[in-house]
Amino acid sequence: MELGTPKGTRDFTPPQKILREEVFARIERVFQKYGFDPIETPIVENWSVLKGKYGEEAEQKLLWRFSLPYSKREYALRYDLTVPLARFYARYRPPTPFKRYQIGQVYRYDNPQKGRYREFYQCDADIVGAREPLPDVEIIDLVSSVFREFGLEATIRVNDRRLLSSLFERHLGIRDRDYMLRVFRTIDKLDKIGLEGVYRELETLGLDKKKRDYVKSVLETTSYTNQEVIDFIQENLDEKDTREPLELFNSILENTKEKSVKIDLSLMRGLDYYTGMIYEAIVEEPRIGSISGGGRYDNLIGSMAGGDVPAVGGSIGVERLIDAGIETGLFKLDKKTTTLVGVIPLSDNVLDYAWSVASRLRREGVNTYMAYNPLPPRRGIEHLEKRGLEWGVFVGEKEKQQKTLVIRNLPQREIWEENLDGIKSIVKKITKK
Amino acid sequence: MELGTPKGTRDFTPPQKILREEVFARIERVFQKYGFDPIETPIVENWSVLKGKYGEEAEQKLLWRFSLPYSKREYALRYDLTVPLARFYARYRPPTPFKRYQIGQVYRYDNPQKGRYREFYQCDADIVGAREPLPDVEIIDLVSSVFREFGLEATIRVNDRRLLSSLFERHLGIRDRDYMLRVFRTIDKLDKIGLEGVYRELETLGLDKKKRDYVKSVLETTSYTNQEVIDFIQENLDEKDTREPLELFNSILENTKEKSVKIDLSLMRGLDYYTGMIYEAIVEEPRIGSISGGGRYDNLIGSMAGGDVPAVGGSIGVERLIDAGIETGLFKLDKKTTTLVGVIPLSDNVLDYAWSVASRLRREGVNTYMAYNPLPPRRGIEHLEKRGLEWGVFVGEKEKQQKTLVIRNLPQREIWEENLDGIKSIVKKITKK
Repeated sequence: MELGTPKGTRDFTPPQKILREEVFARIERVFQKYGFDPIETPIVENWSVLKGKYGEEAEQKLLWRFSLPYSKREYALRYDLTVPLARFYARYRPPTPFKRYQIGQVYRYDNPQKGRYREFYQCDADIVGAREPLPDVEIIDLVSSVFREFGLEATIRVNDRRLLSSLFERHLGIRDRDYMLRVFRTIDKLDKIGLEGVYRELETLGLDKKKRDYVKSVLETTSYTNQEVIDFIQENLDEKDTREPLELFNSILENTKEKSVKIDLSLMRGLDYYTGMIYEAIVEEPRIGSISGGGRYDNLIGSMAGGDVPAVGGSIGVERLIDAGIETGLFKLDKKTTTLVGVIPLSDNVLDYAWSVASRLRREGVNTYMAYNPLPPRRGIEHLEKRGLEWGVFVGEKEKQQKTLVIRNLPQREIWEENLDGIKSIVKKITKK
Repeated sequence: MELGTPKGTRDFTPPQKILREEVFARIERVFQKYGFDPIETPIVENWSVLKGKYGEEAEQKLLWRFSLPYSKREYALRYDLTVPLARFYARYRPPTPFKRYQIGQVYRYDNPQKGRYREFYQCDADIVGAREPLPDVEIIDLVSSVFREFGLEATIRVNDRRLLSSLFERHLGIRDRDYMLRVFRTIDKLDKIGLEGVYRELETLGLDKKKRDYVKSVLETTSYTNQEVIDFIQENLDEKDTREPLELFNSILENTKEKSVKIDLSLMRGLDYYTGMIYEAIVEEPRIGSISGGGRYDNLIGSMAGGDVPAVGGSIGVERLIDAGIETGLFKLDKKTTTLVGVIPLSDNVLDYAWSVASRLRREGVNTYMAYNPLPPRRGIEHLEKRGLEWGVFVGEKEKQQKTLVIRNLPQREIWEENLDGIKSIVKKITKK
């Protein structure tokens, strides 16, 4: 029998699951601090909802789409949490600004490789129905807070699609939206193919040398200070095209108190649906890399819901955070169990007493394991240590008669006796409350 | 565009999701108190893993099985959490007793009706690798504790497959396992078709009148007291066939302190894989009905993992608990948000100050919403009330200059002023900590 999971999917053992739940809970707490509320959408969506939303490549290669033997209806496993959000918004029309987060699995039939999965979790926070610059600032600030929560320092690269459009419209004469997106997508490969590669590819797109050199000069601003980039923008564009993006940049720089915000005109973000601010957060030390991205997408939801529905959001790359966090020692898989105490009956005769001790501990809220068979003290200790427990409670004939119990701190090898009546003080001691 | 989710699947709005998460968390806490640890298995399994595990009907009608356009591999969405547990156990061979819980979605292509979904959550706790009676007792006690957690009184019907097999082997002469299971499945319909219906169906199975009357006499013990059922069992079987089941019953009756445990020989539980104790928990008041079931299945895991792997477990019918809980008023959908405070800037000039107030509150751990646009006091109050917030913080020019803020308890309409420096005492007051 096949014991593995499908390629690109994973089982999580208790230490892994305990760590993952803790990471999710910490992210969730930050989301909630910023006033976001949770929603859930199903993992299975109607194919008609996802169709046409993710581009040709995704539809031809990556989307988990299928029918069942029982019906002709076409289904798909959700590909991200953004299109489901758009559908959700269109369906319920909640009061705006609608600030929601969602944490859950998404599915991509990618070629599995290190850190890339076919079933993986996304953690998204989005603000729907607000066009002001403040929500953009809030998303950047939220993302910084998530990293601070984990003691990480992130560099947040910020750009604005409107600036690039204006620059290329004015200096390259590009007016066609699709052509503009092709130029964007080429620049998006900068990290992979380098400046020379981008330069060559722009040639095949039909840009002459002067225009290619102009793109190059824009991309070279990536080494400038924030103020130098702002100067460059002001030199290259009229005030009417720069006012809103520059106000936004200033607002981000002022309000996030994040010295590590870096205005970067070379930042693209692959997705076509961004319309304004875009960002990417990178952690260099430890070498975790890009762990959050997002931006403003003012047309996507409206195109599904009808009307004019601005939106901005960010996504925490939680799988990379966890994988790299474990690799670099930020996270440890040392919590084998959520159980604190194990009760060991020393003979068959005291099984009932051991059970009542375990029941008392449980009723006091202590996570308690109980051995189903009597064990002698030494083997009892080994049994509990193997399970990763911190405390052992041992009861034998004497303890049963005297209504007492012997407590042992397993790592520190301390041992003492207590009355069962004093269970509340025992609980206090072992839960350190 | 289609705005709904696939038939039998659901969106959960913030109030629903908040309630569900709270219910899951409470169940999880009880599972952990009993020494169970979480695992996670993927939602997508290889079809070969699920094949042959759930019977013909499930395979022909209920299983979400499919291939993708990109490969011939056959996948299935998990149908329950038990077969994935068996696969998980076989793959990792954790130290026994292995006590795990799992909470997650499962998929059945059922005909959706009230309370029945195609995508729904299960909450399972199982003990793998222990043959003693104590794990059975622990599962029953755990289930009672879950209900106590919600202030519910459940009647727990308990039976033992071994007793029924012995009774029918001895008094009906049934030796063939498949035939025995057909009789079991007929009796399982008791609630649906009544005693007369069962009687008639047993006739079509070829049982003569005397044997049918015997089955009837067994089923009629359902109105007996626990002691009368035990007497009946002892009168009808030899000691060697009754010893273990009766010890188990006694152990359950003694150790769970649950006056509402009811030994019930008519309880069947549909699944063929049970081998010993089986139970079902029913809540009559409020009328929630059957919300937990389970039992011992000593062959299932071994049949996948190889070797002899006893197991016992229980499942909380969390969807029924939530649905019926909302209907009967046990649960309320009155928590619209996890956010506690909303900050309202009274003019454009104080947006920055309002932002710094919101940031301070967030840094102090308070879930804080901030309006992106200035609002006059009355509209600010309405805005926050609409969002379901308890507290409003209002800042205008005066507050900005004096570094103060005006706090309002929205439901109680109390209002007072505070210094921003005293933020910690404000936080204490509004979080009641």
